[in-house]
Amino acid sequence: MRKVVFSVANSVDGYIASKDRSLDWILSDAEGTAAMATFWSEIDTVIVGRKTYEPVLASGKSWPSYPGVKTYVFSHTLAADADKSVTVIAADAVEFIKQLRTEAGKDIFVMGGGELANALLAASLIDEIRLNIQPVLLGGGVALFPTLERGVALERVECRSYQNGRVSVRYLVKR
Amino acid sequence: MRKVVFSVANSVDGYIASKDRSLDWILSDAEGTAAMATFWSEIDTVIVGRKTYEPVLASGKSWPSYPGVKTYVFSHTLAADADKSVTVIAADAVEFIKQLRTEAGKDIFVMGGGELANALLAASLIDEIRLNIQPVLLGGGVALFPTLERGVALERVECRSYQNGRVSVRYLVKR
Repeated sequence: MRKVVFSVANSVDGYIASKDRSLDWILSDAEGTAAMATFWSEIDTVIVGRKTYEPVLASGKSWPSYPGVKTYVFSHTLAADADKSVTVIAADAVEFIKQLRTEAGKDIFVMGGGELANALLAASLIDEIRLNIQPVLLGGGVALFPTLERGVALERVECRSYQNGRVSVRYLVKR
Repeated sequence: MRKVVFSVANSVDGYIASKDRSLDWILSDAEGTAAMATFWSEIDTVIVGRKTYEPVLASGKSWPSYPGVKTYVFSHTLAADADKSVTVIAADAVEFIKQLRTEAGKDIFVMGGGELANALLAASLIDEIRLNIQPVLLGGGVALFPTLERGVALERVECRSYQNGRVSVRYLVKR
């Protein structure tokens, strides 16, 4: 079955955006870019919550579209035709992903974090977590992991250390 | 100058104790034990907050004493002679550590976390952060890093991946 992968860049203290919502603390390098290119080739679907999606549009940019990749935005308030490059889903994310992952296709990328990832984790719908830990304490901002009702055991399958201080770790969710 | 090292075992989602305050999710292995033995040989002082210290005593155990290592407990409420194996300090932790690190000696280990580590981080009194990331999401509990007023840039100086799923990362605090 295709995997649901939650992949994100985060600070050491577990934030995915700083207090002022900036992302300028996220380091990039050739290895990271290459790893992301491989990742994009393995997926055909991006799912994203409204709170991750809206700031991108508000910044005046359009949602990045990748050839062969479909983006679903979960929102009860966005107009269905607000942005031609995405599909707005007003239905329940958990039920939608439950169905989606039974269909044939490449892996599914859960982008951003917080509430959507939390709902999917709680429903045992995340198969893999990839953290890209940046060498900084942000002190506050958008939390990577909201609280969960139950703990989740993980299996570390990869850990890489990059020249510029990043550490990437890949975990499988144990069931 | 001697270093002030904040070293802790934490979950992937940034907790140092689970909701029920258990620590049974912390993995041990020969490599980790060897690394801790080396660490203990490099320090001569442990500083610990009341909230980390009290549960140990409440469990009926005595505070572990290590040869040549002095433990300071910061508390305004504990009696000075409550436990012969520690020294209770009612004075301000920041001022105390500021003085302590100018004195000759081996490194200083900030144990536990949360409030004490936060106050010391905010006062630029932590030189090194060592995380021992366990392969689990606890979903809640005692937070590793409380919120900070300002961000703190880190330099990753070591990253090790262990057989049992742990990842240990060592960061220097940039000033």
